[in-house]
Amino acid sequence: MQAIEAFPGNDNEVGLQFSADGSLRHLLSLKGLDKALLVDLLDDAERFVPPPGGKAVRSRSLAGRTIANLFFEPSTRTRASFDLAGKRLGADVLNLDVNTSSRKKGESILDTIYTLQAMQVDIMVVRDASAGVPAYIARHVDDHVSILNAGEGDVSHPTQGLLDLLTIRQRKGQFADLTVAIVGDIMHSRVARSAAQGLNTLGVGELRLISPPALAPDPDEMPFASILDNLDDGLRDADVVMALRIQRERIGSLDGIPGIDEYFANYGISTERMQLAAADAIVMHPGPMNRGIEIESALADSPASAITQQVANGVAVRMAVLERVSNSMEHN
Amino acid sequence: MQAIEAFPGNDNEVGLQFSADGSLRHLLSLKGLDKALLVDLLDDAERFVPPPGGKAVRSRSLAGRTIANLFFEPSTRTRASFDLAGKRLGADVLNLDVNTSSRKKGESILDTIYTLQAMQVDIMVVRDASAGVPAYIARHVDDHVSILNAGEGDVSHPTQGLLDLLTIRQRKGQFADLTVAIVGDIMHSRVARSAAQGLNTLGVGELRLISPPALAPDPDEMPFASILDNLDDGLRDADVVMALRIQRERIGSLDGIPGIDEYFANYGISTERMQLAAADAIVMHPGPMNRGIEIESALADSPASAITQQVANGVAVRMAVLERVSNSMEHN
Amino acid sequence: MQAIEAFPGNDNEVGLQFSADGSLRHLLSLKGLDKALLVDLLDDAERFVPPPGGKAVRSRSLAGRTIANLFFEPSTRTRASFDLAGKRLGADVLNLDVNTSSRKKGESILDTIYTLQAMQVDIMVVRDASAGVPAYIARHVDDHVSILNAGEGDVSHPTQGLLDLLTIRQRKGQFADLTVAIVGDIMHSRVARSAAQGLNTLGVGELRLISPPALAPDPDEMPFASILDNLDDGLRDADVVMALRIQRERIGSLDGIPGIDEYFANYGISTERMQLAAADAIVMHPGPMNRGIEIESALADSPASAITQQVANGVAVRMAVLERVSNSMEHN
Repeated sequence: MQAIEAFPGNDNEVGLQFSADGSLRHLLSLKGLDKALLVDLLDDAERFVPPPGGKAVRSRSLAGRTIANLFFEPSTRTRASFDLAGKRLGADVLNLDVNTSSRKKGESILDTIYTLQAMQVDIMVVRDASAGVPAYIARHVDDHVSILNAGEGDVSHPTQGLLDLLTIRQRKGQFADLTVAIVGDIMHSRVARSAAQGLNTLGVGELRLISPPALAPDPDEMPFASILDNLDDGLRDADVVMALRIQRERIGSLDGIPGIDEYFANYGISTERMQLAAADAIVMHPGPMNRGIEIESALADSPASAITQQVANGVAVRMAVLERVSNSMEHN
Repeated sequence: MQAIEAFPGNDNEVGLQFSADGSLRHLLSLKGLDKALLVDLLDDAERFVPPPGGKAVRSRSLAGRTIANLFFEPSTRTRASFDLAGKRLGADVLNLDVNTSSRKKGESILDTIYTLQAMQVDIMVVRDASAGVPAYIARHVDDHVSILNAGEGDVSHPTQGLLDLLTIRQRKGQFADLTVAIVGDIMHSRVARSAAQGLNTLGVGELRLISPPALAPDPDEMPFASILDNLDDGLRDADVVMALRIQRERIGSLDGIPGIDEYFANYGISTERMQLAAADAIVMHPGPMNRGIEIESALADSPASAITQQVANGVAVRMAVLERVSNSMEHN
Repeated sequence: MQAIEAFPGNDNEVGLQFSADGSLRHLLSLKGLDKALLVDLLDDAERFVPPPGGKAVRSRSLAGRTIANLFFEPSTRTRASFDLAGKRLGADVLNLDVNTSSRKKGESILDTIYTLQAMQVDIMVVRDASAGVPAYIARHVDDHVSILNAGEGDVSHPTQGLLDLLTIRQRKGQFADLTVAIVGDIMHSRVARSAAQGLNTLGVGELRLISPPALAPDPDEMPFASILDNLDDGLRDADVVMALRIQRERIGSLDGIPGIDEYFANYGISTERMQLAAADAIVMHPGPMNRGIEIESALADSPASAITQQVANGVAVRMAVLERVSNSMEHN
């Protein structure tokens, strides 16, 4: 696995994402995307949200383009979302689950990338369990290739962040007066990180990160957020409550939380607990849900839930990002 | 696996399959489809059967539609058949082998369905080893989604039933004067059930179900058929002989049938044995065949065999069903 | 696995590849393809090579056609290359990894083929670890089906051979004055065999096959080539150096080559060693590379390397072959 050890830090990702003319070429992280760009992307995505009961929105703006979904980490939902987004824009889509073949053969990530690039793949959608892989790839590809991060270790999941922002904007209309509470395994959550970065850029009123102490983030990482370990305190008057998926294996290692029931009692979002939040608060989850662990099943299916709206917005956001980086190529 | 335990019986599937205006919305079972509808579907399918040596028939009637092949149970042939049927109608096709990812993550079937629905999937083709899953899903999806059963436990495989009916009609021209013999593991065969239901609706002359006693169906289940355990009696003067696939593991558990040779000697369809049937009798098999177990290899490749014609009809029937449920959506 | 034992030798593949009118119907081997046809195929492929920095070349010449990628042996790269080649010509592409399902079910190769043929698949791209499988299939399919060999045991990999020829022609302009050195596990290499056959037909000046003695080919197999076991002798004044992938397991069984370091020291192509070759020599590799074993990593990324050009040519060559066999069908 040549060179994976050599990943530099992620700090220089910010500039890496843009072409010389300032247009978005890669989407690696929501860090470094300014408010105007985020708003533009959300506005673009709105155009791809179908009307209630309507057919999927389609265009031919990526006809002749080739997208490779390069998933080093398996995913049914995110892969399907990117697959449909590409097909609905008229692109050719190549799905590669690379863990099953090339890595076994010892082929390095870069050789896979160079191979796809030589096959005239225009956009590579990359998911990997290791931090730094999407930026590492972006640094090495030719000028005519764009990299989209579809989930990177614990670090970043920018299209998930965008779909969360779009969902909140649709439900709440603005960010400045909102209190958003993100609940669960913050430490290991790329979903929380990307949502937090985007919310901060858009000027959210208040952001709370609530987790068991052992799963709290480094306080210096997101200084704009408050860190709490008491769920009731975190939910009080919140307008948006975002539950995170937790790995069951992690629960057993938590002090005073020996099992699932204790986790739900302490950090699960229930209808009853939502009484503490604002009267019109919404609840979100990136999926796939562990019903009865992070979130009460009935709450997930209630009118307060924005969970399926998040999924619908996921396709729209990915279409908007694919179209934007594709336009950036035309400029080159 | 929330709610799978709670599957109600399949009796109310019948009404569930139709829209308020009486058009076919889901295809879950051939039970409840009347003769006129079955004949319509077979006539529709005829339009998609290519002329001998001709190119595949294509249309754009599903352009803009999205089909998800949601296979909780693996299948190469049925998946390929639905995949090609969808593509040849101009649809976008998403292939999901869900056993490999989402279920491992503990995501319930319904959450998968809600996710696909939010991604604007119009038609979900579902295959599952458990009885009741397709109807359970059909009861929960939004108005704009259709469910097609692509194989459901031992219960139902309606597109297989339709392709069997189409093949028999092409070879024999009618059903009223026919004797059809289905041979093998009737008890566990969704193929036998769907064929028997369709043949009964279309008014087949005589239907015989032949199996080792331990693999016979409940006599009350298909009262319109005769149940036999002697193959020679079953084949006598039959016009159509349909061999079923048997799982090799089951053979060892049969009284007096310790191995494959004994099974073939007692229940295998051979050229010699076909002498008992009508002079122009045809032999069918749903595939994949265990040559030399259920059927003699030379017989499978003989002019009496309709086996590849069944496969060709499979694509045509699936195109007809996809087009019909898609038209039903337009009415909504 | 019925009939696999019965594969006849490959000698009669030559005639099998052509239709009655002499047009190319199957591509099983470069043996038997004459110089005019090879040059035609390379010329066709040139039309599909995009200009530097340009978009992928596309056409609709296979619209309405169905291609099945039938990979009994896994491959990410070759499968992706054929998949993109088919899509860029407008064909419907069906990807089947058959090892994961049908073979487990005991379905014979032929039954899989008959099934795909009945589904109106026009072109089957077959990869298999056993010698003789593509020709065996070609002998059994209907007149309207073409078989393309995408890798056959140690025997043949004709589209790889064509892309190697195209790359050499692009870099060197001609073959008559060239010395080509192929280095590595010649004995087990279908890549070496196909390249050698094509180079011989095109009248290469000199062809050298260099390997450890235990991995040398039968001297009677390619009498037009010289067989060497000393790498320095083999590289001297060579214009083209082609490194082959070696399976790591094989290295340990080689006399005097106990490990990877020894293999690289004796048979690895390095920048230093390339000093022995002609001043403008190029280096090639079929991929995926074991960097530091067959080839020095820096050399693979140097201007002397034609490795990514080979990959780009792979798509172009496959498009040319797909189009040609498709045209052959029109004649029938």
